[in-house]
Amino acid sequence: MNFTYQNPTKLLFGEGRISEITKHIPAGSRVLLAYGGGSIKKNGVYDQVIAALDGFFTIEFSGIEPNPRFETLEKGVALIKENQLDFILAVGGGSVVDGCKFIAAAAYYDGDHWDIPRGKHRISQATPLAAILTLPATGSESNGNAVVTRKATGEKLAFGSPHVYPVFSVLDPSTMKTLPERQLKNGLVDAFIHVCEQYLTFPTGALVQDGFAEALLRTLIKLGKEFDQHDQDQWRANLMYAANQGLNGLISCGVPNDWATHQIGHELTARFGIDHAQTLSIIQPSLLRNQIELKRAKLEQMGSAVFGLPATDDLAEKTVDAIEGFYQSLSMPVRLSDANITDQGDIDALLNIIAGRNFLKAIGENGKITPEVIREIVIAAR
Amino acid sequence: MNFTYQNPTKLLFGEGRISEITKHIPAGSRVLLAYGGGSIKKNGVYDQVIAALDGFFTIEFSGIEPNPRFETLEKGVALIKENQLDFILAVGGGSVVDGCKFIAAAAYYDGDHWDIPRGKHRISQATPLAAILTLPATGSESNGNAVVTRKATGEKLAFGSPHVYPVFSVLDPSTMKTLPERQLKNGLVDAFIHVCEQYLTFPTGALVQDGFAEALLRTLIKLGKEFDQHDQDQWRANLMYAANQGLNGLISCGVPNDWATHQIGHELTARFGIDHAQTLSIIQPSLLRNQIELKRAKLEQMGSAVFGLPATDDLAEKTVDAIEGFYQSLSMPVRLSDANITDQGDIDALLNIIAGRNFLKAIGENGKITPEVIREIVIAAR
Repeated sequence: MNFTYQNPTKLLFGEGRISEITKHIPAGSRVLLAYGGGSIKKNGVYDQVIAALDGFFTIEFSGIEPNPRFETLEKGVALIKENQLDFILAVGGGSVVDGCKFIAAAAYYDGDHWDIPRGKHRISQATPLAAILTLPATGSESNGNAVVTRKATGEKLAFGSPHVYPVFSVLDPSTMKTLPERQLKNGLVDAFIHVCEQYLTFPTGALVQDGFAEALLRTLIKLGKEFDQHDQDQWRANLMYAANQGLNGLISCGVPNDWATHQIGHELTARFGIDHAQTLSIIQPSLLRNQIELKRAKLEQMGSAVFGLPATDDLAEKTVDAIEGFYQSLSMPVRLSDANITDQGDIDALLNIIAGRNFLKAIGENGKITPEVIREIVIAAR
Repeated sequence: MNFTYQNPTKLLFGEGRISEITKHIPAGSRVLLAYGGGSIKKNGVYDQVIAALDGFFTIEFSGIEPNPRFETLEKGVALIKENQLDFILAVGGGSVVDGCKFIAAAAYYDGDHWDIPRGKHRISQATPLAAILTLPATGSESNGNAVVTRKATGEKLAFGSPHVYPVFSVLDPSTMKTLPERQLKNGLVDAFIHVCEQYLTFPTGALVQDGFAEALLRTLIKLGKEFDQHDQDQWRANLMYAANQGLNGLISCGVPNDWATHQIGHELTARFGIDHAQTLSIIQPSLLRNQIELKRAKLEQMGSAVFGLPATDDLAEKTVDAIEGFYQSLSMPVRLSDANITDQGDIDALLNIIAGRNFLKAIGENGKITPEVIREIVIAAR
């Protein structure tokens, strides 16, 4: 249980906090205001941000898409350089925040910016950034990680650095009011699986980390069961905070991490364009069943502590069933066919890509998930 | 559920981390090495620190006592000024860390330093400090709060500032190996009551905060039940981390806080010299019984979620009994008489002091604990 942990991001949580942002942006900053497809213009968030930024030199950069693309983000980097901008304000969900982390790091790197996600450039400096979160899920507003996609090569890669933690993040649950149900469900399940990736490994006796993870899992299950209350302030606040705490680095301190479901899921998104959270709900139950002997003890712990299941011989199996049932109760896909991927040729093409990935040779907390095991997992998830 | 949270302290958790400290202290720093009564010279921690600080100009300041005294700490401030020191390394438990926070703030204040705890000086700058924790309990290694005592006036007062968060803290559980059982039990119960002060108020539907608090309470109860394993690395690591997370600001985000037990307890320490944790185990059960109607809902939640008690009409009462029983199982006092305070004249003198305190006129999460209520609580705790 050795670890180093520091999380410098200041959280401004609660309704109306957007109005305070310029207390936390250095006076005279030249701001890149980055956002996605424009939903913030419909729900009033854009107007709040513009009002708050009154007096700051601001350049807008819109159009950061879900699974933000290198090709798009490069335009943001160019805007930073052309206009000597020195602060980035990301307004949106995890994709916008992730995209801005890439822009922040790339603005200080003269080489090929794709070196950043492929690990060939070690980030030593980045433009300061902050986030106004409008879609809870990824925790990106409180961590130093990001995932970016390159359309030309079909790659979806993660990178991280202490230099791209947001300086501050506004978590105003009222910004979620206009989110479609599909995005709320995706966010809830994404957060749930983030916690699982840091918990469903093998027991190490880390009571606090396990207890925190279980508290988050129980919270997310309760919110899922009470999904019909998703227009209530309390429901929104709990989801926004649970998703934040699920991936701010806290619960992974000093315990093994998995992340294989995410790594496989990224390939599904890159190949088929399936929503990130939906790739996870498809892959994870299959992966857990495939790895059940290695994960049995922790699945049993989860079954008892999170789902309240009785201590039977097949408790681990029952726990996976309960996880899968939880996703189904939220109308999430749990098979490729649920996401309309049924063509064996498409699946074979995916498996061929996976077989060629250097970074997918030995994944999971034990490094035991090889391309052959991934094949089993994907085939079983058809 | 509105709050602002930022915790800048870097945690270096695990055995052997003391050797890394100079990676995190600016080169050329002139260091005040502060510690307590010298136990660190017996258990090897002092030698590790001296080895790690090789090459740094260092002035030692020993003798910071439990419930650190203004009169003592002023000598540390003088050392900082005389030697132009610009970094403080606190090696010890919560008292040493708290004392160093006072020194750090006082070094940048030319007025009467007692203005700091009595709230007449707003801290705007402080000497950077770091902690090497040797006794888990107070969370002081990860927060911006401190409590100091003035012998001359019998005052024990708290203060806080973002400027006195440690820059980093080393949490090496092996430093606890030589702690006497009494200090381990005090630390465990102190941490437990810290969590209670941030949890046992009234329900607000904050699922994450409640879940985290309950996880910490369950952890501490488990460690108490397994106290015979306190010489095991895992036990020590879990206590050290639970105490840290119990008072780093996390679980109090956006929820009501109480702290009345602490405020009354401080008066018991100032008057009678009772160990801090023991003042809490004496006062808290009596306070909970006195305030049971206001706290009933949360006590019932705790009884169910933490102690696994059945849902009876007297669940709240049973929960207080379980809390008290937990302290008794660790041989902690739960009455003033257990701490050998039996003289009614002594108790009356204490109550007279309390009646004269401006800051004890309306305490607790509802402000309903007046000096008259404190009298009832103390009398019932005889």
